[in-house]
Amino acid sequence: MRGWLSARLPKYNQDQLLLAVDLIGTFVFAVEGALAGIEAGLDVFGLLVLSFVTALGGGTIRDLLIGAIPPNSIRDWRYGATAFAGGGAVFFFHPLFQRVPLHLMLTLDAAGLALFAVAGVGKALEFGITPLLAILMGAVTGAGGGTVRDVLLAQVPGVLHSDVYAAAALTGAAVVVLLLRLKTPRAAAMTLGAAACFTLRMVAAWRHWNLPRVMVH
Amino acid sequence: MRGWLSARLPKYNQDQLLLAVDLIGTFVFAVEGALAGIEAGLDVFGLLVLSFVTALGGGTIRDLLIGAIPPNSIRDWRYGATAFAGGGAVFFFHPLFQRVPLHLMLTLDAAGLALFAVAGVGKALEFGITPLLAILMGAVTGAGGGTVRDVLLAQVPGVLHSDVYAAAALTGAAVVVLLLRLKTPRAAAMTLGAAACFTLRMVAAWRHWNLPRVMVH
Amino acid sequence: MRGWLSARLPKYNQDQLLLAVDLIGTFVFAVEGALAGIEAGLDVFGLLVLSFVTALGGGTIRDLLIGAIPPNSIRDWRYGATAFAGGGAVFFFHPLFQRVPLHLMLTLDAAGLALFAVAGVGKALEFGITPLLAILMGAVTGAGGGTVRDVLLAQVPGVLHSDVYAAAALTGAAVVVLLLRLKTPRAAAMTLGAAACFTLRMVAAWRHWNLPRVMVH
Repeated sequence: MRGWLSARLPKYNQDQLLLAVDLIGTFVFAVEGALAGIEAGLDVFGLLVLSFVTALGGGTIRDLLIGAIPPNSIRDWRYGATAFAGGGAVFFFHPLFQRVPLHLMLTLDAAGLALFAVAGVGKALEFGITPLLAILMGAVTGAGGGTVRDVLLAQVPGVLHSDVYAAAALTGAAVVVLLLRLKTPRAAAMTLGAAACFTLRMVAAWRHWNLPRVMVH
Repeated sequence: MRGWLSARLPKYNQDQLLLAVDLIGTFVFAVEGALAGIEAGLDVFGLLVLSFVTALGGGTIRDLLIGAIPPNSIRDWRYGATAFAGGGAVFFFHPLFQRVPLHLMLTLDAAGLALFAVAGVGKALEFGITPLLAILMGAVTGAGGGTVRDVLLAQVPGVLHSDVYAAAALTGAAVVVLLLRLKTPRAAAMTLGAAACFTLRMVAAWRHWNLPRVMVH
Repeated sequence: MRGWLSARLPKYNQDQLLLAVDLIGTFVFAVEGALAGIEAGLDVFGLLVLSFVTALGGGTIRDLLIGAIPPNSIRDWRYGATAFAGGGAVFFFHPLFQRVPLHLMLTLDAAGLALFAVAGVGKALEFGITPLLAILMGAVTGAGGGTVRDVLLAQVPGVLHSDVYAAAALTGAAVVVLLLRLKTPRAAAMTLGAAACFTLRMVAAWRHWNLPRVMVH
């Protein structure tokens, strides 16, 4: 699955590295999902569901759509285990997590978003999806989990009405596609795409940017 | 994919015609999705998501269920591009769209519904789905996108509680199945099914018909 | 599909029995979905959608995730027909259904949950899903339909915040996996798993158990 990121590192080490990075992203998103579950008064089962869905929902939707079935989250137990570990950690040690400074959480989330967006567009391209829709799959991977989480909490998904979030994922994914078109080596294209997404997200959060909207009244 | 609608026209022209009709339906539904997004105060990203989901959500769910994976919306960039064009047009020229007379919008929507319902049942039959469920897939294709749109807006889908909408799609799809059973040529069965759906939807809207419900209080 | 439950009964009779039990579960869940639809003021179409989704939504999501596509609900018309029969029965004879004693409804629902959980984990294992996620698929099969129903009604799914419901399904599915590991014959493992789920659900309902949650205020 991760063959698209071949590089100069020996294969084994590189795959280990990628998996580690991926699981860290999964853990961060799972923690955020669990915190949202506590906020909404869910029980421990609901909290674990929100962890799983927030961390793995985006990648699962992407995999269903591009035809990578069973999706990674169902094929490899380490993703689910990591998501549940994140949720469980919040359940048992939530005062600890609620003391994490907001800007650290935001930074980790932006890193997770960048990683997921870049991994998402890469996997979609590998499955032969056309560039326009592969970029969209990058955004689905990064922002899809949070969207399903908000739907389960009976809220309009935040990503649809505020912040520059999915737009940062789209930008990072578009950078990847563009650089690959320009024959940039894969590892470089992926890294620069992730950097673009991360930077845009961080600057947007810092400057409180919002996307334009149509004013009707 | 559209081989089920072979007819006397030369294949090339017919496929072009079908694609054109399909993309017009996609554009109309995308415009409606974007207008709902403005109404709900979404930003430009949310508006484009609602365009995509409203226009292509029903067909995507159908394709996942019948096993046509990747779904058409992910396989062929022209559908996504058309949906985003519809959303983008609303974003830039929304006063224009809000001046479109309601009955014209309603007529275009009914035409889109009829087309999607008939295309949906046809594709399901082509994939070997049993008639009862193929008819259901017609309704999913026609009404599924609006259902997902309403879920994303945290509302009970309108199609579940008011209007004769999905029922018109079911009727049109059932007419197609019935006529194909009676050995009617495909093009004729499709056309008559679409006409049945369109007519029922228009009459129902004009007479403010609603489906019966159980009164509990 | 049901080859995992081979036992001493002749194959034909056993498959007939399993199908009958499965369809009874489908009917019970469909009735519950339809009653929720009436409560929410849906029309007859919405009521039938809720019947279908509540009864077959969980199994459909499981099938999409494990790669059993088209899902059973779309492949075999008897499931859809049974779900619609349940919804239709409620529509025409709802005073009858509303007079069913609550504890009978609860018992039937617990039986349906137990059956679906055990069938779900069994099918997931058969499709080569790893035990941790196969257990999760048991819970998705049992509790997924009610979750989608609540999302369509724009409510936070009850299963996320109250009662011991999905946890009973997880327990039953875990018992199945454990017993199969211990070389228990399939039929026995399935029966004991279902009994564990049913018992836990009934006791939990009777004693008004809830899962623990994190108190934040």
